[in-house]
Amino acid sequence: MNSEKAKWIWYPGDFEIECANKFMTNRYERDVFIPPFWKLYSCHKNVKFVKNFALAKGEKIRIRAEGKFNIQINGGYVYNFDGTLELGSGNWEMVISIYNDKGIPALYVEGDTVFSDESWQVTCNDHKYFSARTDEELVHGNSTPNRVKLPVREYKPERILERDGRKIYDFGKEIFACVRFSEAHKESGATVYYGESLCEAEDIGHCELLSADFRRSGGSLTTKIAKAFRYLTTEGLSFSELTALSEYLPMEKKSYFRCSDDLLNEIYEKAEYTLSLNTREFLIDGIKRDRWIWSGDAYQSYLMHYYSYFHKSVIKRTMSALFGCSPFELYLNHIMDYSFFWVMGMYDYFQYTGDARFVGENLSKAFEVMEYALGRTDENGLLDSRKEDWVFVDWAELDNTGEVCFEQILLIVSLRDCAELAEAFGETARAERYSGLLKEKMQKLELFWDEEKRAYIYSRKEGKPDGKILRHPNVFAVLYDVCGEERKNFIRDNVLKNDEIPAITTPYMKFYEFAALCALGEQEYVLREIRNYWGGMLKEGATTFWEAYDSRETGPEKYAMYGRKYGKSLCHAWGASPLYLIGRYIVGLTPAGEEFLLEPVLAGLDSFEAQMPLREGSVKISVSKEKIAVYSDRMYGTLRAGGKSFRIVPGKIKEVAYS
Amino acid sequence: MNSEKAKWIWYPGDFEIECANKFMTNRYERDVFIPPFWKLYSCHKNVKFVKNFALAKGEKIRIRAEGKFNIQINGGYVYNFDGTLELGSGNWEMVISIYNDKGIPALYVEGDTVFSDESWQVTCNDHKYFSARTDEELVHGNSTPNRVKLPVREYKPERILERDGRKIYDFGKEIFACVRFSEAHKESGATVYYGESLCEAEDIGHCELLSADFRRSGGSLTTKIAKAFRYLTTEGLSFSELTALSEYLPMEKKSYFRCSDDLLNEIYEKAEYTLSLNTREFLIDGIKRDRWIWSGDAYQSYLMHYYSYFHKSVIKRTMSALFGCSPFELYLNHIMDYSFFWVMGMYDYFQYTGDARFVGENLSKAFEVMEYALGRTDENGLLDSRKEDWVFVDWAELDNTGEVCFEQILLIVSLRDCAELAEAFGETARAERYSGLLKEKMQKLELFWDEEKRAYIYSRKEGKPDGKILRHPNVFAVLYDVCGEERKNFIRDNVLKNDEIPAITTPYMKFYEFAALCALGEQEYVLREIRNYWGGMLKEGATTFWEAYDSRETGPEKYAMYGRKYGKSLCHAWGASPLYLIGRYIVGLTPAGEEFLLEPVLAGLDSFEAQMPLREGSVKISVSKEKIAVYSDRMYGTLRAGGKSFRIVPGKIKEVAYS
Repeated sequence: MNSEKAKWIWYPGDFEIECANKFMTNRYERDVFIPPFWKLYSCHKNVKFVKNFALAKGEKIRIRAEGKFNIQINGGYVYNFDGTLELGSGNWEMVISIYNDKGIPALYVEGDTVFSDESWQVTCNDHKYFSARTDEELVHGNSTPNRVKLPVREYKPERILERDGRKIYDFGKEIFACVRFSEAHKESGATVYYGESLCEAEDIGHCELLSADFRRSGGSLTTKIAKAFRYLTTEGLSFSELTALSEYLPMEKKSYFRCSDDLLNEIYEKAEYTLSLNTREFLIDGIKRDRWIWSGDAYQSYLMHYYSYFHKSVIKRTMSALFGCSPFELYLNHIMDYSFFWVMGMYDYFQYTGDARFVGENLSKAFEVMEYALGRTDENGLLDSRKEDWVFVDWAELDNTGEVCFEQILLIVSLRDCAELAEAFGETARAERYSGLLKEKMQKLELFWDEEKRAYIYSRKEGKPDGKILRHPNVFAVLYDVCGEERKNFIRDNVLKNDEIPAITTPYMKFYEFAALCALGEQEYVLREIRNYWGGMLKEGATTFWEAYDSRETGPEKYAMYGRKYGKSLCHAWGASPLYLIGRYIVGLTPAGEEFLLEPVLAGLDSFEAQMPLREGSVKISVSKEKIAVYSDRMYGTLRAGGKSFRIVPGKIKEVAYS
Repeated sequence: MNSEKAKWIWYPGDFEIECANKFMTNRYERDVFIPPFWKLYSCHKNVKFVKNFALAKGEKIRIRAEGKFNIQINGGYVYNFDGTLELGSGNWEMVISIYNDKGIPALYVEGDTVFSDESWQVTCNDHKYFSARTDEELVHGNSTPNRVKLPVREYKPERILERDGRKIYDFGKEIFACVRFSEAHKESGATVYYGESLCEAEDIGHCELLSADFRRSGGSLTTKIAKAFRYLTTEGLSFSELTALSEYLPMEKKSYFRCSDDLLNEIYEKAEYTLSLNTREFLIDGIKRDRWIWSGDAYQSYLMHYYSYFHKSVIKRTMSALFGCSPFELYLNHIMDYSFFWVMGMYDYFQYTGDARFVGENLSKAFEVMEYALGRTDENGLLDSRKEDWVFVDWAELDNTGEVCFEQILLIVSLRDCAELAEAFGETARAERYSGLLKEKMQKLELFWDEEKRAYIYSRKEGKPDGKILRHPNVFAVLYDVCGEERKNFIRDNVLKNDEIPAITTPYMKFYEFAALCALGEQEYVLREIRNYWGGMLKEGATTFWEAYDSRETGPEKYAMYGRKYGKSLCHAWGASPLYLIGRYIVGLTPAGEEFLLEPVLAGLDSFEAQMPLREGSVKISVSKEKIAVYSDRMYGTLRAGGKSFRIVPGKIKEVAYS
């Protein structure tokens, strides 16, 4: 039997939905379980797989399913099925119906020439048939669609500290793991207390995470759910040894960046580690909290991935899980802006990967999001904030009532992206519709331009501009190029580099602010800021980057957030944004259709060397004050340096000396 | 704690969907599992219950949930929850979030004054809140929303037969039960073989049902799934005693009918028993097969129920389960006609029960069905048969391609029903829309009237009448009153009482044919047919009525159907239609707004006595050739007899003597 070719198969979308449900329902605040506070979907329950095939000679076929099932061969049921079927030569139609009330109905068929794969058709019994889906990354070996087991890396504590007679185990860096206690005995109420920081682990009455559920296997006890920690301490447990079992998604390292500044190199490396911990079955926000898939956070992670692991499968899974099921009746994660980021993420995915299959299969979802949003514009044709829509923008003191400029810009960018995607996929009428709407919304954006202050105002209330100038809309107007070169310069001077405009404080929004500054040629300024901000976290002993950071907070208050002493996540995906900023604006690699564009910027560095992935290829570059050398393994591209353009041909090193 | 008032609560629709999925996935053909071949839905997974209340004094509240959950009190999580919560006096907001990946997220709260009931609000986290739902009939005592246990009636075999050295246990009548074997031992391959008929039980190689899965409890073995049988035999099992454990839905007997004809009395009684076996958590088609909820079958069961058990709860559950979840994107059970029967069933439910709450809550679903169907009319404004739509009509040799007259009539009746319901529930614009469409479709129906043959033709193919005269459309035109009195008489003479028109052979369609004949005043003819057809089954030894019957089949071939020796169901809900025919057309009770109309017909009988339920009341009647006596306990009504009308006042016996 051909076990190499056989794959578990299921109905499109089912795996992403169920796997995400499982992943996202492991958030706890101490003993309190916290499910996502948005709608969760279900997989299909009752599906039918169909395959027509011809056998030149007889063959034994092994069939397994998750769920109750039956097999029809050429229209007749197979009675007394014992796991294996023998078919003679000839033409066969195999129909396998599966009902699963506890998870994904899934199928595994393994013969010499017949095996389950994406060539099978599947229906949820609504008359529509699709190619069955697989996940070669997560579902193979011991994993089944309903029980994914990631590989495990074992860690031992690097040192043991004593605090008030209590042992605290320090693993030396942030990890995300279950813990196995060998030769273990437990008393009632036995508990493991975790800390991302030492003081959190010491403070067992307030630490965010604890485990009181264990699995026994032989003499050892293992905690049931992987949690985020660097330190841990125990109560009511005796054991000879403890081991952290860190599940991880195997990923190839596809990028490197090494420059003349060691601090920047360390920041780059810790950012990579931060992103890798937050890259599991899905791209999550943080490993301590929320362990959820947030579309706005994920959008930044996609962009970071394009300049690091370039792990396409996790991006696809994340986008599918986020969308859930049609019809689209609710903004993603309830948040208006996060819904646009999903659309923009689809556009970027196509640019960076060229994966027409995934985009083609999911494009209608992007259009569904657009139609939903367009259906919610007010009498002025603008997006306003309704009671049930969460207009998030940023964790900051923002008044997001009325018509918020930021959202109009995201609508415009999404329309532009959708028009282009529709065109690329041959949906001409739709492309025209969105192009027309784009023009209309661009005109409406003028309502937010303050000609006196030469910047975009934050919002309009009851039809009138609020006159407030804040960074958010202006950052996005520059970054997504909706305002023309002249205004960009006004915005730089009047907003971005104006200290009187309230500073952006979250790393989430700093991602965009720094990107916008880079887009304006301010790479040197941005590198300085990165050194300060991320360097500041390193000084505080960070082994991964944080959800938020304020250099003025140096005591334990730096770990507090959301009104809780240790509420802040110290390993947060959006903390890894230097990956993107460096890859996109220092190394300067961007997709340009089927080719690439490379615009390296030294930005005050003496030199750097880097390798960055793109589509199926990879681009290496070394830059010093004297010269640039570029090597692309598979793609054609253009190097822009010193005001000139140079053609890059794959397989050939291109060297350019500055004159 | 107030356990009397506390009820399990859940999100609207979840219970019906999951309970139906569980029920319908117990169909087996020997060892082959057969799931429904239409789309099955899921309950919500992630819901939130909310209740605001004030406590005059402190109170202990016990909280249980199905699924993982948390509790928020006035916005704060409850940590270290041990099953009970103590709250002091004051105002409280309790929010309980539940995630359940294995079934319905459900809640049970039990305090002195605080308890879970329909006053709680619930959301699936889409910002929409609804009153939580309960099911007092099925979910109480030891039953939970995810595990419904019906009460059990025990039966012992009435006699033991010996056939080829094998013992065959005869329970004397058809039952639907698990079987417990006391002091039992089993060999590998131990199996119970069932028969609705003796020859089925004897024929262990071909009988439809068998059980090879047992639950052990102490010394006894019990089969896992209730099956339909009168006879059983075993292999590989030794035991001291066996007991059939028949689960049943407790129902009050709300009607009786006793007339001067004993055969008719026996038919009525066996019909009641047939319907009761097919009335479980839902109204199913047959207990041996399919054990599924089919909308067309259920529609007839609703009508039978109005003249027998009047068990509203099972009708409501059945309608909810059939519809599943919005959006409506597929005909019910894939069948066009069955979708209209759902709409018509809603209308009838409102007429017979006056239950404005259920109808109000579900009316939008009826409109969804209508809009779906209206969206599928062809360029002539008629319903045509598309590849993916199953135009069923009847199990008979029918060519249902093209524009089938039967479906146009059902569309018309549904439009008329919806227009009336929309009007009654204050949806004026919609009522007007449907009234307008009704007129339009009535005109289009003229395309099917054959002025020469004076009857409706069966269908139109490629825009041309097929000229075929069959009973189906003509029966419906008369019964649902879409053709005027003159045409009704033509139809009676040219079709219904014309032996040259092919006979209807299924009890399913006979339901409508007999009803139409009664509507034309042919009760005496119909009673004769009932005596022949149902009396014929009794002669064959039926203890319940069959899926189909042909008096010419007297050997074992009478049990065959669908190409299988014992494929025919011998306890089929639609076999119980005498309940309806007698109640509706002999007793003659019908709803008339808030009152009733009673038009008894002796139809050749010497006398009858009957009691029939309606809304919250009950009507008793005794009819002889000399006089009629009527007693209504709660409702006003009108008696029509001998061409005159008499006012019936509740609580007073009204006697009318024929002069």
